[in-house]
Amino acid sequence: MSWDQVWIDVNVATMSPSVSAPYGAITDAAIAVKEGKIVWVGPRSELPEFDVLSTPVYRGKGGWITPGLIDAHTHLVFAGSRANEFELRLQGASYEEIARSGGGIISTVKACREASEAELFELGRKRLNALAKEGVTTIEIKSGYGLDTETELKLLRVARELGKHHHVDVKTTFLGAHAIPPEYKDDVDGYVDLVINEMLPAVMAEGLADAADVFCENIAFSVEQTERVLSAAKKAGLDIKLHAEQLSNLGGSAMAAKLGAKSVDHIEYLDEDGIIAMSKSGTCATLLPGAFYFLRETQMPPIELLRKHKVPIVIASDYNPGSSPLCSSLLMLNMACTLFRLTPEEALAGMTRNAAKALGIEDKVGVLEAGMQADFCLWDITTPAELAYTYGAGACLEVVKAGHLVHQ
Amino acid sequence: MSWDQVWIDVNVATMSPSVSAPYGAITDAAIAVKEGKIVWVGPRSELPEFDVLSTPVYRGKGGWITPGLIDAHTHLVFAGSRANEFELRLQGASYEEIARSGGGIISTVKACREASEAELFELGRKRLNALAKEGVTTIEIKSGYGLDTETELKLLRVARELGKHHHVDVKTTFLGAHAIPPEYKDDVDGYVDLVINEMLPAVMAEGLADAADVFCENIAFSVEQTERVLSAAKKAGLDIKLHAEQLSNLGGSAMAAKLGAKSVDHIEYLDEDGIIAMSKSGTCATLLPGAFYFLRETQMPPIELLRKHKVPIVIASDYNPGSSPLCSSLLMLNMACTLFRLTPEEALAGMTRNAAKALGIEDKVGVLEAGMQADFCLWDITTPAELAYTYGAGACLEVVKAGHLVHQ
Ligand SMILES: [Zn+2]
Ligand SMILES: [Zn+2]
Repeated sequence: MSWDQVWIDVNVATMSPSVSAPYGAITDAAIAVKEGKIVWVGPRSELPEFDVLSTPVYRGKGGWITPGLIDAHTHLVFAGSRANEFELRLQGASYEEIARSGGGIISTVKACREASEAELFELGRKRLNALAKEGVTTIEIKSGYGLDTETELKLLRVARELGKHHHVDVKTTFLGAHAIPPEYKDDVDGYVDLVINEMLPAVMAEGLADAADVFCENIAFSVEQTERVLSAAKKAGLDIKLHAEQLSNLGGSAMAAKLGAKSVDHIEYLDEDGIIAMSKSGTCATLLPGAFYFLRETQMPPIELLRKHKVPIVIASDYNPGSSPLCSSLLMLNMACTLFRLTPEEALAGMTRNAAKALGIEDKVGVLEAGMQADFCLWDITTPAELAYTYGAGACLEVVKAGHLVHQ
Repeated sequence: MSWDQVWIDVNVATMSPSVSAPYGAITDAAIAVKEGKIVWVGPRSELPEFDVLSTPVYRGKGGWITPGLIDAHTHLVFAGSRANEFELRLQGASYEEIARSGGGIISTVKACREASEAELFELGRKRLNALAKEGVTTIEIKSGYGLDTETELKLLRVARELGKHHHVDVKTTFLGAHAIPPEYKDDVDGYVDLVINEMLPAVMAEGLADAADVFCENIAFSVEQTERVLSAAKKAGLDIKLHAEQLSNLGGSAMAAKLGAKSVDHIEYLDEDGIIAMSKSGTCATLLPGAFYFLRETQMPPIELLRKHKVPIVIASDYNPGSSPLCSSLLMLNMACTLFRLTPEEALAGMTRNAAKALGIEDKVGVLEAGMQADFCLWDITTPAELAYTYGAGACLEVVKAGHLVHQ
């Protein structure tokens, strides 16, 4: 065999359903890589002979290899800080006072409209570096802090550029219908028209988005308005997804499932009918423990029902300045277990195999099997459960992205 | 003026009560360092003339300098992982099943008794590196996973060695009375005798501890037993502190305050009488949001009463394998605000000025004033509140320890 790279002295959590052990684990394993892809993974004792003189062999010192982490829901490209608002709230300021001081999502929108692409790129690059060091190899980034055509395009352009200039792959999502901009507060349908008739065609013309998303909620867009946007996006050829049932159960999830949404995200208030609809359509449920933590929510997402109906559970950071300002995907594995009582294996599947499914890239990444892209991490851990159990002691030793050892 | 180093183009959160602005902040400031100490700090416009040709001048690019972080309560030196126990619990195992599988503090004790000093040192070094990268310049490390003389000494020796070989200063605490070892489960007083008559003298003979601590709780040591240990430790010349009122209000805090304890830690169930006693004795209240989070506690520490009686509030990680496996001091600033509703300024004071007081080193570190040791961090933030508001995007740009720029 002629390979580009071989890993030995490792255990591998393949996360592949075709390996029956928990985590799809193979202890004392080996992985062979060629032309950016995994060409062989299995017990080291079964590793075919290869040319040891010409093939670099990496030794994992008995650590574990997992698929590279996939953070399937972030708002990573934004300008401005909401630290002042955070501080005012903790000092006892009223909502009115905070609004008067310029807080809320509108402060982020204002900062994004004013920021240059170069400024946004630099902010995004720092954040992406931090996530990459933790083992993230693929990320989704949404727009949604522009709320006008020019700024939505700017945010998506920056997200695309980040993907081009960073080893982390970036999937972009057009979230024009994230909030109602002040200019349209008395004409929400007019804003929906703008999203569909002006923003979406402009996004498509530049090829800036892989998917579209809407915030379907009492305080944002109705199920009907959401359906209009998602239908148009689907027709334009985008994958579709949804922020829904975070604060109330409007029925957006069932509607989106019927349209074939890849994922519905948040869903603390989702009922069994919605879950059955998602199960039928193969729609993933993306849980966002960072926002649950930061907003001190008490309504738990319907974990047992998701398990019962075998809806794939995804875990993501929802990294954003308003409701989840923790720039760490890895920490979300712990939060998913601690706050939502997922098992460590469910949490890891939520940031690998199922996250890939939510982004429509499950044929390429998310599990470690022959034929998949060689995106994986070597961790300084003794059992895969440690990734969720503990945090912070620098467990990510090496990252391989599309077959390249990343130096960071 | 002849100085070793000057910092300009920075804002400084001195945390000094002598500067009246919030955070003791001086915008557009300068700091001068000589022989490991701060010799001048103030507005840059008032910076005395100095020899610009022979003095290195560092530019902070408009960021903020704060005192180096002080984590005043950790159990950082331990062996073994409790990931299996964590996983079993989330898979629905009963306490009995977990106990049978060898879980609980006793599993950590067993691993610590078996580990060599070299192994423990290497584990501790990795963790200390992770905290140092976040801006920690001083840390407290407790024993308490030995529960026999030999292992308690071993843990303290490793903690001392870490302090000698790392730029982070280590204060060590003897916590022999952390839990009741299985060998003494029917003779708790006998174990207390061992702690006082054998362990404590051995610890003192080797000069291994700066302070002593006891876990005073229904499931551990009574107030009377605690008082015996703390009195003996005080007599031996150690500072004293306490884990107390975490699960119930036994009155340990008031007792320890009367003995002049530097801090009482946890205190979710502490009442006003205990707080008044602490206020009189100048005892700090150390809050541990990581354990509160990980144990999903609901009983909030008595923040308002601590404020009312002006008890200095300290924030620490309590990093340990059982109840706070998050190896991050910085994250605790966010958790202190999010979970305990402290203000960002209170949280930062809790990991600088007040943490120094809890460790009895407030004459040396914790605030940035002329005469203090030059322990400080430069952060990529626009307001000090950002340290608590957000987490993870690599905000710590530089660390200066005793006047030395640390490369990490
Ligand atoms: Zn979101
Ligand atoms: Zn503790």
